[in-house]
Amino acid sequence: MYKIAVIPGDGIGKEVMEATLHVLEASNLEFDYTFADAGDETKEKTGVALPEETLDIVKKSQACLFGAAGESAADVIVKLRRELDLYANIRPVKSYKGTKCLFEDVDFVIVRENTEGLYIGREEYTDDGATAVRIITRKASERICRFAFEYAKTTQRNRVTGVHKANVLKKTDGIFKETFYKVAEDYADVETEDFYVDATAMYLVTMPLHFDVVVTTNLYGDILSDEGAGLVGGLGLIPSANIGDKQGLFEPVHGSAPDIAGKGIANPSAMILSAVMMLEYLGENDEARKLEKALTQVLSDGKVVTGDLGGSASTMEMASEVRAKFEG
Amino acid sequence: MYKIAVIPGDGIGKEVMEATLHVLEASNLEFDYTFADAGDETKEKTGVALPEETLDIVKKSQACLFGAAGESAADVIVKLRRELDLYANIRPVKSYKGTKCLFEDVDFVIVRENTEGLYIGREEYTDDGATAVRIITRKASERICRFAFEYAKTTQRNRVTGVHKANVLKKTDGIFKETFYKVAEDYADVETEDFYVDATAMYLVTMPLHFDVVVTTNLYGDILSDEGAGLVGGLGLIPSANIGDKQGLFEPVHGSAPDIAGKGIANPSAMILSAVMMLEYLGENDEARKLEKALTQVLSDGKVVTGDLGGSASTMEMASEVRAKFEG
Ligand SMILES: CC(C)[C@H](C(=O)O)[C@@H](O)C(=O)O
Ligand SMILES: CC(C)[C@H](C(=O)O)[C@@H](O)C(=O)O
Repeated sequence: MYKIAVIPGDGIGKEVMEATLHVLEASNLEFDYTFADAGDETKEKTGVALPEETLDIVKKSQACLFGAAGESAADVIVKLRRELDLYANIRPVKSYKGTKCLFEDVDFVIVRENTEGLYIGREEYTDDGATAVRIITRKASERICRFAFEYAKTTQRNRVTGVHKANVLKKTDGIFKETFYKVAEDYADVETEDFYVDATAMYLVTMPLHFDVVVTTNLYGDILSDEGAGLVGGLGLIPSANIGDKQGLFEPVHGSAPDIAGKGIANPSAMILSAVMMLEYLGENDEARKLEKALTQVLSDGKVVTGDLGGSASTMEMASEVRAKFEG
Repeated sequence: MYKIAVIPGDGIGKEVMEATLHVLEASNLEFDYTFADAGDETKEKTGVALPEETLDIVKKSQACLFGAAGESAADVIVKLRRELDLYANIRPVKSYKGTKCLFEDVDFVIVRENTEGLYIGREEYTDDGATAVRIITRKASERICRFAFEYAKTTQRNRVTGVHKANVLKKTDGIFKETFYKVAEDYADVETEDFYVDATAMYLVTMPLHFDVVVTTNLYGDILSDEGAGLVGGLGLIPSANIGDKQGLFEPVHGSAPDIAGKGIANPSAMILSAVMMLEYLGENDEARKLEKALTQVLSDGKVVTGDLGGSASTMEMASEVRAKFEG
């Protein structure tokens, strides 16, 4: 019995969460769900986007499934990442058969530092504008780089690319780069290289198959992972894991999509794949593979899929199809 | 007679500069060139990457042609941009016939703020790391946004997209976003929208034809313009203009490319297109169109082009071909 916090959130967050829980019902495992509130609606009702109670529920769980938050996303998800010290944000970018990906055979993972950089909220107004402080520490850099190399090792990936802008940000990104190569010394079997973030943004388009594991600071990871999503057909297919020493939080990279919310047409894939990442995190690898296979089959069949994937199924119809394959 | 500072710099910078000056010799205009040193070699010889003398030469010129600098690029180009207050960095992203662009018909321009953001060099070591300060002022934001809208007007472009991350950087990017919409009020004919930088990184891949003029802060512009380069076949074709109230500096977006330097095989297109931007800046629009046409003809013929474009011509052979068409 796994203790799981469930935060559906706003907009399509609720819909893809319902779909994913429906799929997970067919699992051999047992989950003890505790539902919790966060996001725009919660803020409207209670005045805060992320109530203390929600934070408590997540703290007492082994893992958290998170849907999406609307306008208040930053106050919800950035705070959760920091408060729970979920320092590693893993974002697999993979092209699935049957989807409108720009490139086939793309398969890399972005490991994004999740607790510092420009995300620390240290901003101040000045006479004619504002300043923001970007913090890079050796501790967080070492932790995320080690995570990336360990991840490469366990997933049989052979290359780790460190991404920074140390030519301009000589001290902050200089530390990141230096730490990256220091950690790399412990992983002699893994190929190691570093690129500037701007060059990486180009290479992701010109040689996407080159990449395997990419490790980088918070904001660069934010930008590059959305670019990666573009390469494989958009955010509808990109899951993510936010991993700390005590918990993991699993969420689609997409947002609450107010434009299509309430219509029951959202693609549930990214949320289902986030559940796959949760199963892996819980050590349930067989179950994870089975669920991933069920989804990829539905995608490659291309029959019962949502509109963005070229089909006409509703969110729940597609989920039921995945569930049927997952059971079978 | 135009007074032009010429900084070939390092590596292929020298080669593409020689090629471009060779082409410009066929122009009807007269240029008074003053050559100046900067970059790694200069640093090795004199101890500084950007000598005061070079800065003086550029200050006394109407425009500057800049090749590329190596490892010291940041100390050269970032300093030139700031010292000369070249506040607008214009980077056209356009797919040319005959090139290996991923998308045809891409044609947008990134207008990048060029003097502040994370590029101000305010970094400090701390106990366990370092901090960098990011500055966004209303003055610089207003200036760059106005530049972008004016640019849209004069080039008959109908949409300006403001790019920021105001959900996380509420104060700094909040100011940029607010200023963007304030300036937009003066341009009622131009369609206006704003996106987050991460979403933009995705949209550039999923809907590149949507974009027309993109205006953004310094680092986002750096990253997105390299991504744009990827969409149209790499950095070999992307020129840029750094515009201030007194001077303009024109440079390819690519660097000194040590891996191919000295071989005479570098693609001179980005430097030639930078010269086209210089001609426009000098008000010589007919000459600019003629030169651009000569280059695009050579590209679409695809016969006398460099290796990266699928040909086997040397840098100077390709330049001579462009020159012949420019004269003709
Ligand atoms: C919603 C936003 C605060 C968040 C981020 O910037 O991290 C999102 O873009 C993401 O990538 O998870
Ligand atoms: C060389 C480097 C300092 C520069 C920048 O970051 O601006 C380059 O990447 C560019 O885009 O012109």
